[in-house]
Amino acid sequence: MNLEKKFLKAISDFNLISPDDNLLIAFSTGVDSSVLLHLILKFKNYLNIREVAVAYFNHSIRKQSDEEELFVKELSKKLEIKAFTKKEDLFSYAKKNKLSLEEAGRNLRYKFFTEILHKEGFNKVATAHHLSDLAETMVLWFLQGSKNGLKGFKPKEGNIIRPMIYITKDEIYEYAYENKIRFFEDITNEDETILRNKVRKSIIPLLKEINPSLENSLFNLSSFLNIDEVFFDNLVKEYKSLYKSKFLNLNELLHLDKAIIYRIIDKWLLENYSIKISYKQLFEVLKLLEKNKNWQFKLQKGFILKKEYDLLYIESNYDKSVSYEYKLYPNDEVHIKEANLIITSTIENFSNIDKLKYAKNKVCFEYISQMEEGFIVRNRRNGDKFVPFGRSSEKKLKDIFIDLKIPKLERDKVPLVLFQDKILWIAGFCRSAFYPIKESSKKIICFTLKEVKSANN
Amino acid sequence: MNLEKKFLKAISDFNLISPDDNLLIAFSTGVDSSVLLHLILKFKNYLNIREVAVAYFNHSIRKQSDEEELFVKELSKKLEIKAFTKKEDLFSYAKKNKLSLEEAGRNLRYKFFTEILHKEGFNKVATAHHLSDLAETMVLWFLQGSKNGLKGFKPKEGNIIRPMIYITKDEIYEYAYENKIRFFEDITNEDETILRNKVRKSIIPLLKEINPSLENSLFNLSSFLNIDEVFFDNLVKEYKSLYKSKFLNLNELLHLDKAIIYRIIDKWLLENYSIKISYKQLFEVLKLLEKNKNWQFKLQKGFILKKEYDLLYIESNYDKSVSYEYKLYPNDEVHIKEANLIITSTIENFSNIDKLKYAKNKVCFEYISQMEEGFIVRNRRNGDKFVPFGRSSEKKLKDIFIDLKIPKLERDKVPLVLFQDKILWIAGFCRSAFYPIKESSKKIICFTLKEVKSANN
Repeated sequence: MNLEKKFLKAISDFNLISPDDNLLIAFSTGVDSSVLLHLILKFKNYLNIREVAVAYFNHSIRKQSDEEELFVKELSKKLEIKAFTKKEDLFSYAKKNKLSLEEAGRNLRYKFFTEILHKEGFNKVATAHHLSDLAETMVLWFLQGSKNGLKGFKPKEGNIIRPMIYITKDEIYEYAYENKIRFFEDITNEDETILRNKVRKSIIPLLKEINPSLENSLFNLSSFLNIDEVFFDNLVKEYKSLYKSKFLNLNELLHLDKAIIYRIIDKWLLENYSIKISYKQLFEVLKLLEKNKNWQFKLQKGFILKKEYDLLYIESNYDKSVSYEYKLYPNDEVHIKEANLIITSTIENFSNIDKLKYAKNKVCFEYISQMEEGFIVRNRRNGDKFVPFGRSSEKKLKDIFIDLKIPKLERDKVPLVLFQDKILWIAGFCRSAFYPIKESSKKIICFTLKEVKSANN
Repeated sequence: MNLEKKFLKAISDFNLISPDDNLLIAFSTGVDSSVLLHLILKFKNYLNIREVAVAYFNHSIRKQSDEEELFVKELSKKLEIKAFTKKEDLFSYAKKNKLSLEEAGRNLRYKFFTEILHKEGFNKVATAHHLSDLAETMVLWFLQGSKNGLKGFKPKEGNIIRPMIYITKDEIYEYAYENKIRFFEDITNEDETILRNKVRKSIIPLLKEINPSLENSLFNLSSFLNIDEVFFDNLVKEYKSLYKSKFLNLNELLHLDKAIIYRIIDKWLLENYSIKISYKQLFEVLKLLEKNKNWQFKLQKGFILKKEYDLLYIESNYDKSVSYEYKLYPNDEVHIKEANLIITSTIENFSNIDKLKYAKNKVCFEYISQMEEGFIVRNRRNGDKFVPFGRSSEKKLKDIFIDLKIPKLERDKVPLVLFQDKILWIAGFCRSAFYPIKESSKKIICFTLKEVKSANN
């Protein structure tokens, strides 16, 4: 099959182009994107494309970039299509954002393309990624053992399309020479200290000695890995309530299949703590989860993954526990910023108490006149004591926290409601024996605990 | 971590050995299995292993094999353990069964080990597969694009355990020299025309220039690919009813996710037709399934995959349609071997007819005395005509088959019940207008169609 047929077959196999598309071509002046531009213009009418334009991102990395930018402008004038260009300093951006040059380049390019899509009314970006690119990408990730990278890229991802996915680099060069297509040669392509070049120049030729149709075989591998991953992506979304919480509930997690468990842990760490866990660490964590005791596991500088009771959470050196103390008057409320909680106090009728007795987030006490002076809401202090409801002797608050299986990290957040140095309520957990409501009680005071929903939860 | 620690860690991480195991060691006299034997004997008491024995399979492929067999016998005498040996001609076996030497060797070895397990009371086989073996296997399958092979082998598969999974080949050699462990060198290991050797000698060193801990990275990749595949294996088993049938029901199949669809097709072809479909073919089939029309797809010599209406099936050149014809008397039955079906005829009471009217597998007609002479049950012939119930004119049977969406391959199997050259019933599909039951009917005759269950369905 010749190059043009492969180009059209990919468009048809993956529904890359629909009638009336406005297509922006990611144009680098290299041979790949020059051939892509040529092909798209050649088949523009056949494919019913409405408009074609090029976008050139000048990342100021090579001396020739400015010359190339000029070339893009002249070429587009000649071809009577729009050209969008942008110049940015890749080195500074990469340094500032602690990214590799490759990542930084990708970020900036896609940002630039997305801007044009939104502002200029284009609906798709065509990139010149081809079959040899796919093979290189897959080899690079394979030798790093990355299951996620290994699947390579897809012919269609969102509004990005890759119509050269069936075409090899050799075919692209050959086509360019046959059709006298002008392009710039990227001299950095020869530099074998760049990993990707080493893969292209040394490793792939060796692999092709064993399997001459390596690229096609890897394309198939990529297709099936992508199908599997799409399946898992959809499945894992069903467990949003699990991974959207700072504390990962092991009672629910450990009922699931390992294939779901490791994906939830990965997603949970990334979404809640911006931690990218490595496969090696993930594998260790899976092994630890089989153990029925508490443990901690160092993830990266300053972050420790902890299992306590039925919860998994991150303890960070940066999370410094803060002491807090607020005053709360009857019929008023207090917002505890440190714990994202609100406690309200209300003087209520006696008649309500029956249904309130066991509510976790609301408790009531007999109201006495001295309470007008208000209550203290604070977190724990060393030496705190507590008399649980139904008992007469005091216990160490610390022991009660242990009995309640409250993880250490949480303990500093739990609000305590005090009246005259006595802890009335461990908010959300249990009430004390003080000021019980009696038949003779005239007024009662109730405390209610509410969570403050934050926008990103 | 030194080699011994890695050995014990693998045993603990994957629960490879339980107290009182009777362990058979797959012993080849090479460095890997010699070190394995050494380690297992060294830690036999520590691990509470009850008995250790070696099994040596002499595949008569090298001149030195007989010398090795003798060595095994002497060594086991010295170590006071049992040795099981077996000699078989690998070349003839591979040729006869059309297998590669590697496959043939694996088959024969595992058959030999399984026999010993059953006969001699051993419960596990320990093999000397190590981390470098895993990496080689994965590279070999990766460059062939095989997702299934890519995942490599597991530390534990059924009753096979691989306690050297954390250890590299270099570490094994070093340990063997340090501990003065005797072993035979396999001279075929140097032959670079053998793929695996080329991978070991040329490709892996190059990959390690980029990632020095390649083997560990690939171990992680293998672990996660295996976790995913176990998940899919279990999931796909839920669709047994689909893939256990010669005809794959597309109405049910196409509701599923692509990740399940391709696995069901793969399993269906293998289990029903012993066809191993390639990833390339599978990818084409997935694309064809998106088309809403009938198609056929050549799989391999003599086998065509066909989509007709809502069914997928295999048409084989070897499947020759056979004409059949049987005589059926009232109150008797006929077994149609060609279609695995039984038709029974019974003279019944009028009162039953209401509920039978629409039953697919049972129809009734007015009984007249001439029917004593019996019916013909046969498959279709060219030119057959049929008068459907509720109509008065005849139609070509062929057109009715098309209307009923019966796949071509099935049409030759469908039994027709005839009386005096008239088709009364297209068994299992529809009845004719002849001999309808009337208020005045005195006796009725009913035909019932049953499938014969075969043992492997």
